Amino acid sequence: MRFVYLGPEATFTEQALLTVAEAAAGERVPARSVPEALDAVRGGDADAALVPLENSIGGAVPITLDELIAGAPLMITREVVIPVEFVLGARAGTPLDAIRTVAAHPQASTQCRNWLRTHLPDAEVTDVLSNSAAAIAAAAGEFDAAICAPLGAARYELAVLADKIADHSHAVTRFALVTRPATPPAPTGDDLTSLALVIRHDQVGALLTVLTELSVRGINLTRIESRPTGEALGRYVFFLDCAGHVAETRFGEALQGLRRVCADVRFLGSYPRHRWAPDLDHPVPAPAGLSDESFAASAAWVDRLRHGDY
Amino acid sequence: MRFVYLGPEATFTEQALLTVAEAAAGERVPARSVPEALDAVRGGDADAALVPLENSIGGAVPITLDELIAGAPLMITREVVIPVEFVLGARAGTPLDAIRTVAAHPQASTQCRNWLRTHLPDAEVTDVLSNSAAAIAAAAGEFDAAICAPLGAARYELAVLADKIADHSHAVTRFALVTRPATPPAPTGDDLTSLALVIRHDQVGALLTVLTELSVRGINLTRIESRPTGEALGRYVFFLDCAGHVAETRFGEALQGLRRVCADVRFLGSYPRHRWAPDLDHPVPAPAGLSDESFAASAAWVDRLRHGDY
Repeated sequence: MRFVYLGPEATFTEQALLTVAEAAAGERVPARSVPEALDAVRGGDADAALVPLENSIGGAVPITLDELIAGAPLMITREVVIPVEFVLGARAGTPLDAIRTVAAHPQASTQCRNWLRTHLPDAEVTDVLSNSAAAIAAAAGEFDAAICAPLGAARYELAVLADKIADHSHAVTRFALVTRPATPPAPTGDDLTSLALVIRHDQVGALLTVLTELSVRGINLTRIESRPTGEALGRYVFFLDCAGHVAETRFGEALQGLRRVCADVRFLGSYPRHRWAPDLDHPVPAPAGLSDESFAASAAWVDRLRHGDY
Repeated sequence: MRFVYLGPEATFTEQALLTVAEAAAGERVPARSVPEALDAVRGGDADAALVPLENSIGGAVPITLDELIAGAPLMITREVVIPVEFVLGARAGTPLDAIRTVAAHPQASTQCRNWLRTHLPDAEVTDVLSNSAAAIAAAAGEFDAAICAPLGAARYELAVLADKIADHSHAVTRFALVTRPATPPAPTGDDLTSLALVIRHDQVGALLTVLTELSVRGINLTRIESRPTGEALGRYVFFLDCAGHVAETRFGEALQGLRRVCADVRFLGSYPRHRWAPDLDHPVPAPAGLSDESFAASAAWVDRLRHGDY
């Protein structure tokens, strides 16, 4: 199998991909951007793409959200969550008080904002396209220092002036493994389903209606993000992660409801939750009356009513 | 009055500030960043700060949202919405097919993504800190071209290789004029109120509860954004813009409800809606039974019940 990932090499995305057994044993190809990675899957040049979805500090990765809803449908088959740890790297012999310019990926500088404000308040921070690009630019002398992964500093022979510089020591990044549409992986009892939907903006309480379709079936929302549709201020696509799997009857019924009340719904996949830390919330089983068996029994009852069989 | 704004000079933010009469007549000082602009107001060095809130294409400006909820409370007293128009500028004599590197602010490159993909598919786009910084860097020869405002190209003597390169021709950016807390501007009948709130994550349907507190008082939500709190994946601060004013009885009652059901609520201001285009939705008056008079009458009725006076 051929896997493409958001490059360059030696960033957190490659590190995350190596945790996927089939990818560690398969072919791994870096892409220059999220659109390039996803287009490789859409066009059949790769079987799957690993792209960043969100970070616990920096928030959503807008380009990934935007690209998942533009063009041919894709499907998330797996999530990967890994801890993120940043260092400040510089060429050997550079003291911290000589740092005037720092190269950093925007998500990295966001996560190290307080450290930068305290230790390098006068340094100019320039956005670059990746943590590796920051390390490479510092190694080449274009900047005095770089915020990068420990792996990146080692790879490009930078001295580590400070380690664990992220403001929150427990930051994680969440990635999605994306394929062309297919039957989703089988339910495990601890699954997530991702959706993108456009509400009917002309209807008061349209978002409330969406949340009610989920709530009435006991489906928990674990994430909601909005992205502009580009039409006008106030017109959004909502990205929802819900606990549950499309194969469950209650989830199928909720999806039917969303299809009826929304202007548009795109299914982005049902996949096992990555239990990356021992203290994650435990999966919530279907509340009483919302199991597949309850749905089957209640459907049979209504059918009997319609035939005088009660 | 002393106004600070997200600098440098000659960007869209200064252009937006010039539409505020008091600022056009007052002192205007550029700040190097959104945190610097807001801290100038918090510390009393400036009376007000103009900072970008969101763009109809690129979405929310995360640093502004994050900084509004960190540190001492601030208040939005006015919104300004202006159209955004980008050009590709380069040193005189550079042909389009010689462009290999482009400097651009991330929001600008996001808004010109399709144009870049079509016309400069192989160019490397480097994030810089502002549209002016892009123009300055191109003028200095650090990059072959810059995406910038028409004003920026003129100011730094770049030739315009292409104009109106934004993928959506009707893009607008929304700015907030921010002061220290004070009595909000008087209601106009067409106002917005901005809130930041943290839901009770341990309660199922917590976001549904929030939306219900608004809906039951006939309050429309015009915007909802989520930002991570930094604690863990799945822990968010929600930013809400609602139609209405804190001085209205129904709005006050909704705020009381939010205060009771949320883990935290921060009031970010009630201010007149900027009617920047003639075809904006018209303000929705309070539905029947939700006027200040209805609230007063119903409160008096309950009071009579409690005193046997019915």
